[in-house]
Amino acid sequence: MNNKRGFASDNNAGVHPDIMSSLQSVNEGHTVGYGGDSYTRQAIDILKKEFGASAEVFFVYNGTGANVIALQAMARPFEAVICAETAHINVDECGAPEKHSGCKLIDIPTKDGKLTPELIEPLLNGMGVEHHVQPKVISITQSTEMGTIYSLDEIETLCSFAHQRRLLVHMDGARISNAAAALNCSLADLSAKAGVDVLSFGGTKNGLMFGEAVIILNPELSHCVKYIRKQTAQLHSKMRYISSQFTAFLSNELWRKNALHANRMATLLATEAVKIDGVKITQEVQANGVFAIIPSAWIKKLQEHYFFYVWNANTSEVRWMTAFDTTEEDIRGFIRLLTTISKGEM
Amino acid sequence: MNNKRGFASDNNAGVHPDIMSSLQSVNEGHTVGYGGDSYTRQAIDILKKEFGASAEVFFVYNGTGANVIALQAMARPFEAVICAETAHINVDECGAPEKHSGCKLIDIPTKDGKLTPELIEPLLNGMGVEHHVQPKVISITQSTEMGTIYSLDEIETLCSFAHQRRLLVHMDGARISNAAAALNCSLADLSAKAGVDVLSFGGTKNGLMFGEAVIILNPELSHCVKYIRKQTAQLHSKMRYISSQFTAFLSNELWRKNALHANRMATLLATEAVKIDGVKITQEVQANGVFAIIPSAWIKKLQEHYFFYVWNANTSEVRWMTAFDTTEEDIRGFIRLLTTISKGEM
Amino acid sequence: MNNKRGFASDNNAGVHPDIMSSLQSVNEGHTVGYGGDSYTRQAIDILKKEFGASAEVFFVYNGTGANVIALQAMARPFEAVICAETAHINVDECGAPEKHSGCKLIDIPTKDGKLTPELIEPLLNGMGVEHHVQPKVISITQSTEMGTIYSLDEIETLCSFAHQRRLLVHMDGARISNAAAALNCSLADLSAKAGVDVLSFGGTKNGLMFGEAVIILNPELSHCVKYIRKQTAQLHSKMRYISSQFTAFLSNELWRKNALHANRMATLLATEAVKIDGVKITQEVQANGVFAIIPSAWIKKLQEHYFFYVWNANTSEVRWMTAFDTTEEDIRGFIRLLTTISKGEM
Amino acid sequence: MNNKRGFASDNNAGVHPDIMSSLQSVNEGHTVGYGGDSYTRQAIDILKKEFGASAEVFFVYNGTGANVIALQAMARPFEAVICAETAHINVDECGAPEKHSGCKLIDIPTKDGKLTPELIEPLLNGMGVEHHVQPKVISITQSTEMGTIYSLDEIETLCSFAHQRRLLVHMDGARISNAAAALNCSLADLSAKAGVDVLSFGGTKNGLMFGEAVIILNPELSHCVKYIRKQTAQLHSKMRYISSQFTAFLSNELWRKNALHANRMATLLATEAVKIDGVKITQEVQANGVFAIIPSAWIKKLQEHYFFYVWNANTSEVRWMTAFDTTEEDIRGFIRLLTTISKGEM
Repeated sequence: MNNKRGFASDNNAGVHPDIMSSLQSVNEGHTVGYGGDSYTRQAIDILKKEFGASAEVFFVYNGTGANVIALQAMARPFEAVICAETAHINVDECGAPEKHSGCKLIDIPTKDGKLTPELIEPLLNGMGVEHHVQPKVISITQSTEMGTIYSLDEIETLCSFAHQRRLLVHMDGARISNAAAALNCSLADLSAKAGVDVLSFGGTKNGLMFGEAVIILNPELSHCVKYIRKQTAQLHSKMRYISSQFTAFLSNELWRKNALHANRMATLLATEAVKIDGVKITQEVQANGVFAIIPSAWIKKLQEHYFFYVWNANTSEVRWMTAFDTTEEDIRGFIRLLTTISKGEM
Repeated sequence: MNNKRGFASDNNAGVHPDIMSSLQSVNEGHTVGYGGDSYTRQAIDILKKEFGASAEVFFVYNGTGANVIALQAMARPFEAVICAETAHINVDECGAPEKHSGCKLIDIPTKDGKLTPELIEPLLNGMGVEHHVQPKVISITQSTEMGTIYSLDEIETLCSFAHQRRLLVHMDGARISNAAAALNCSLADLSAKAGVDVLSFGGTKNGLMFGEAVIILNPELSHCVKYIRKQTAQLHSKMRYISSQFTAFLSNELWRKNALHANRMATLLATEAVKIDGVKITQEVQANGVFAIIPSAWIKKLQEHYFFYVWNANTSEVRWMTAFDTTEEDIRGFIRLLTTISKGEM
Repeated sequence: MNNKRGFASDNNAGVHPDIMSSLQSVNEGHTVGYGGDSYTRQAIDILKKEFGASAEVFFVYNGTGANVIALQAMARPFEAVICAETAHINVDECGAPEKHSGCKLIDIPTKDGKLTPELIEPLLNGMGVEHHVQPKVISITQSTEMGTIYSLDEIETLCSFAHQRRLLVHMDGARISNAAAALNCSLADLSAKAGVDVLSFGGTKNGLMFGEAVIILNPELSHCVKYIRKQTAQLHSKMRYISSQFTAFLSNELWRKNALHANRMATLLATEAVKIDGVKITQEVQANGVFAIIPSAWIKKLQEHYFFYVWNANTSEVRWMTAFDTTEEDIRGFIRLLTTISKGEM
Repeated sequence: MNNKRGFASDNNAGVHPDIMSSLQSVNEGHTVGYGGDSYTRQAIDILKKEFGASAEVFFVYNGTGANVIALQAMARPFEAVICAETAHINVDECGAPEKHSGCKLIDIPTKDGKLTPELIEPLLNGMGVEHHVQPKVISITQSTEMGTIYSLDEIETLCSFAHQRRLLVHMDGARISNAAAALNCSLADLSAKAGVDVLSFGGTKNGLMFGEAVIILNPELSHCVKYIRKQTAQLHSKMRYISSQFTAFLSNELWRKNALHANRMATLLATEAVKIDGVKITQEVQANGVFAIIPSAWIKKLQEHYFFYVWNANTSEVRWMTAFDTTEEDIRGFIRLLTTISKGEM
């Protein structure tokens, strides 16, 4: 079948060859199900090396699953989750966080998808008053849904702010690899070492077939996660086929290699696109997403050849995502088309 | 790594080679995510041919996910789900059905894991009375958790009984392939044609890597399932990797070939085991599970060499499951060990 | 015991003498529980005369109970409820709407607590897309939490807007009496006749001891409310003691008499307060609430003598609510104190 | 209106005159809402004297509300509540416990509505295994739905059994007064002193108009109950009208006086009824309920004159409840009618 390439999402990409090989490599014989096998122990050991010995690892199917398990582990239904208005948990999970956790999400408008203590502070007035939900979790996305990145300082500041107020910090790391690659730091630097309590560690958007991991970094929160995972229908029976992917993902920093490439492609795309008259880049390009305002008449013409989504129809803002398998030729071809259209030649 | 073979569960088996190939075959280029791709359309078309043109197909990650989506599509929280006491939804899903649907499960003791109208009828007295949950769904498992099978007649009778009382029928078909293979009928014969309203169609226990399908057979129930699936965190982004497995699973009746083999292995195991003094087969062996009472002293010795679970420690009843990849040598070896132990030679 | 009078909330008032009498009047003999008694039939008949023969009436305990039952009757968990940022369901019910209904609340900042089609329209872009919750209910409060009132035209316009988009309209009528009194119209004019689908009809804030009513005005929504009420723990056993209050409340328009008085007291308070240097009334006073910004230093001094709440500590905005039992002397005394403080004499 | 007397339920009775007086006595002036008033402090103080200084008291509307708040305070959704098959939470609350707590209820058939360690022990095998819900709460009803009573020894034994296994004990005390009256002990003897962790303390079935109390006896469970109560829509605004009833209820042991009377009436009814040929008492009459099997032909004739419910239509078993306001003449009249019918004279 003939499938258009494009910039719709990093999950439109395929599976990295090393990941495919890892699946094949464990496909023999019998193993205990549900994570009691040696492949899973190995993968967990590798992740513990990455995130610290006290980290507890729970493999799950997808990002929404990881997020709602994290939130259930962190908050009770009368507590609230503070997040950016653009957060995936707020707008792209069909209300799964509220449904699974029972919690209210309190969303905050931001200019770049990033929360700050100043934005959060005014929401904490109702603490201790039973008429109001009780803020308990600050959920941040790294890299954000707007393609921006929290610096290490910003994360540490938020975590410190949170812990002083008995709040917890959740990091939606569907694209944490892209952030760590951009900041040239380790995955733990961004999460465990910065004070994050629970991380949704993403794999699918960076070359895996399926599978994410909930990493419990605050040991007080781990004791009932195994039940929450099962009740949330996120415990895979043939677990070796998730574990082996993570083993490959962590080996030789495949995660970083893939992410660096995607990031570079986004930078290239933005660098070239901004030269074209009529294109305005709206967010700093720090990871693998490019947000741009272009004339609305161009959109349909571009979409005939490349997949991508309109982010805001009212402002004619579009989103272009790159992936581990985006090629320089993808970018060049797209820029050529964009240029042609911009000149009114199509 | 060295993994013991055994009879713990059909999900301890690996992935069938044809399924592995199908994953590789779709791993190139970009496709739209979340099921908007051509591979998924193809797989759905094949399933519609199997189950009828009005069937609606929703791929999900696992059996618990399929079941809780089915129940949410069929019942509101004040309604109840009637099931056998031994049903997977009742005892093996950590309360996921209650948590996701809000519904009470009303479980019925049975001798063989099978419900009958006579068992259900007495539970319908509170219909229309607001103090009591309102029975809405009869959930049956085919083949059952006890290794038994509903005949076509039995399913039709249950469905007819249900519909006359405005109830709906859910079939947990985690092992429907084994049942259809045993009855030498089609998957639709057992479900769509017999009057079942919603089917959880299992793949993982019969050779898939991951993935099940919710098949909505009653068209009145399908209109909001896509939202329920997403909110239940069961919508895969890289959907082609589930779809392609189902395409392979349905091609040349791979599902039947695998199931027939597993069933034959169970029959062989039971036939040979029953000859051994001290072994009592407790359920009719109709699919791929064998239930037996053996002297409790034997259990640990057997488990040193083969995985399997104790079903009931009080009665020393064990469960032996076979799979598509169980070999005749697996059975012979196990029988040899059993014989040796029975003679007190170990 | 010596209790301070004040303007904290209309629920700090006592029970109207006619309501107390009604409770005494039904306190003899036995009656069937849970609403099967003749007092309840009588009260329902009276409410049906008020709201229309097709209205279905469900008595409940309190306003939060009424609201969450209404929302459960109107929306499924993957659907969303649109409301003003200041809505009681959004900020004063400890997340009960999300917990009970599973739905996300999408809140909109407003200047006066009132929604308009223009504010709502931009939120409807995700209709039909499974990643996003599906807006289903517009919930408006009449009179609003800001003491303002929707005109009949405004309600009709909202309802028409909603129904054209297959949305439903819920009215939180905890203070609907105050609105109807202010607009000199009937309760039905504001609700049933304007197109509202479900009304939470308040009693407690206007002289009842306990008890509210969920009035289902859209007949398609009524068939399972009795189960929802019971499951929500809002079905009273000794129902005659709620019913009798409503019978008294509706007789001779006690609701209007009480509300008119409270409204007049608010107008008097605002009229006098605004004359005092340093007092700024921030919302139009249309019902029984007065919002004012006063110097923050005054607040504590005033609260030593009168109960009331600070609405916004940052802006030094306070809320003064009047009730059916607020006396002119309450107002005069408060104004005297306010004047004294404003002159720096305290 | 003319209302039949009868034995349908103790909630068909009216409100005790002392309770009515208490409502009138607090009906003046303004008080802070939601329990911040002096009447509520007084009532809580009295209850703390009754149940112990470390008891925490939360007034709510009704028994189902009390039970679901208790369960939410005690268990998380992946945990389970063990109860008798006949428990009110299991059969008479329209699935509210599952809906509010997310927990599975595991119900046990009993002969007399009473649980024992022997009945519970076999259900604890799955502890620590994530596939199975984790038993956390044992919920017992005192007096039971079958009119029987746990002795102090039996409660202590159950609590000790529970605590050794890290389980908690909930007591549904909708009729705890009847049990304490029958056992001639204090309310605390039956609950706090026997090791119960949380008590639903009933008022409505014993002379109150509305109102129950959740009594947290295990201090580790109290810290978030105020939020749970609010989110469960069980926090009354005009709290003084519940508090004052409890103050009257506890004063001069009105609860015991009322309960003793109801119990005596039940004993009288059973003593006289059993003399009639054709009447078989099926449960020991220990509190205020009488269960009897009578010829099915009698039922309709009796119900023409007296309300009561058929408990089991298949066995023709009926339930007769007495209340604080049942008169000896009620019993005599009923016995006369029963006698007449038994002789075939009607």
